[in-house]
Amino acid sequence: MTTSQPLDLLPDSSTAFLSPYLPPSAPSDRVFVTLTYAASLDSRISLGLGQRTQLSGSESKCMTHYLRAHHDGILVGVNTFLADNPGLNCRYNIAGKSAVEASPRPIIIDPTFRCKIESRSKSMMAAASLEGKEPWILVSAEWRNSVSPSDLVHIQSIERMGARVIPVVGLRSDNRNESWAAILKSLKKLGIHSLMVEGGARVINDLLCTAVDDINGAKISPVDVVIITIAPVYLGKNGVEVSPASALDNLYDITWDQFGRDCIMASFNKKLRADF
Amino acid sequence: MTTSQPLDLLPDSSTAFLSPYLPPSAPSDRVFVTLTYAASLDSRISLGLGQRTQLSGSESKCMTHYLRAHHDGILVGVNTFLADNPGLNCRYNIAGKSAVEASPRPIIIDPTFRCKIESRSKSMMAAASLEGKEPWILVSAEWRNSVSPSDLVHIQSIERMGARVIPVVGLRSDNRNESWAAILKSLKKLGIHSLMVEGGARVINDLLCTAVDDINGAKISPVDVVIITIAPVYLGKNGVEVSPASALDNLYDITWDQFGRDCIMASFNKKLRADF
Repeated sequence: MTTSQPLDLLPDSSTAFLSPYLPPSAPSDRVFVTLTYAASLDSRISLGLGQRTQLSGSESKCMTHYLRAHHDGILVGVNTFLADNPGLNCRYNIAGKSAVEASPRPIIIDPTFRCKIESRSKSMMAAASLEGKEPWILVSAEWRNSVSPSDLVHIQSIERMGARVIPVVGLRSDNRNESWAAILKSLKKLGIHSLMVEGGARVINDLLCTAVDDINGAKISPVDVVIITIAPVYLGKNGVEVSPASALDNLYDITWDQFGRDCIMASFNKKLRADF
Repeated sequence: MTTSQPLDLLPDSSTAFLSPYLPPSAPSDRVFVTLTYAASLDSRISLGLGQRTQLSGSESKCMTHYLRAHHDGILVGVNTFLADNPGLNCRYNIAGKSAVEASPRPIIIDPTFRCKIESRSKSMMAAASLEGKEPWILVSAEWRNSVSPSDLVHIQSIERMGARVIPVVGLRSDNRNESWAAILKSLKKLGIHSLMVEGGARVINDLLCTAVDDINGAKISPVDVVIITIAPVYLGKNGVEVSPASALDNLYDITWDQFGRDCIMASFNKKLRADF
């Protein structure tokens, strides 16, 4: 699979199904966050740690790229970056837009710069061939302040190619609420008004349970919409699973639609947490 | 919730959706097995061991009872019996059939008779009030051969009320292939031509990976149809999960349909095992 392989267009019924769940065209004071992933019937996203596993059929993959075209940024954790080497571009043809314009900004959460992204990484190659945007890597401010000379050379080399390594104050691996608040605040300042979070399991499980302060100081979920592809297979108990630390009953205005042999659930997410 | 609460009828679109997956009217040489359960998005069937958890909405619950009306038997493991005290009858109104006639035979896999079923158990009460059939408890032949005097008194008392405690040669807790072959052979002899397996997690996970001998000696799955209700909630990582020991890609002719806020997947299951 290359990053440039073209995708079929979605039928009107599918774009109508997704339409209510797309980010609003006018930015608000917060980043609009869409949490999206593909899982098996047993809620596994891969066969094992570090194993890239193709779950979605062509129809639901097409849906994912359609969603990418409607978001400013697409975010994954460093483990997913290392396991999948994802292109993170948009291969859905949007009338009047180039592939670069249609593609979201790839954003990698990577507090200590483990990704070691370089010119041959798929997302860099997609950008170089005008099929996507150059990625941003979010590192912790602490790591950036004490960066080693060799890492600094590495950063300078990828930044010359258009990528950015962005220090985020408050990005910590041990506090999800603080980290997500810091990430979203940084991204908003950088002009990311809508963000699609694609994985991996740790990022998804954390985000589902995260609470950030709203403007009145109330604890709210940063997630606006949840869109899940379910593939009719079992990946088995050794697979990498999506299952949050606690039970949640936050989804509402739920719609399901069959895409090929997969099913896609689209829903809104209550801002105030509802335990099951 | 009582066992006698009436259910709405399914709309024609829902019965049409299910129709291809119902057991054939003419019995074959094997028991037709429908594996069915309701799970959360993270493939949990309950919040924890022994905790009855209501997942399905009214529409998908109605679907379950419609399915029950089309099977000779409904099977659960003893842990589900102990956790849920299920009625296991059919509350869907089938024209021209009494509730007893419409109800499947409740069957409990319970090698060492831990269920201690008695007159106040919901399935016994349903039978006593002509709302279901008397349950059968499948015990191991070894256990039955060395039954204690007090258990014998217990068995005699529930058998006087119409229940049956049936010794099965080959029913063992440590060999799923042998056990399922023995269970299905016994049930077939007892006139159960179609069987709905409803849970719990151990029974489902085992059955998904089970292989029995077909008439030519080939190893095949005993499962003909899989029907899963997915409720749009997360039960969280401490929940009781459905996830088989190994990855499987056995399902085909897959259809998804939204029931209320839930989604139901109906599919056939390949007889020869297909690993993912």
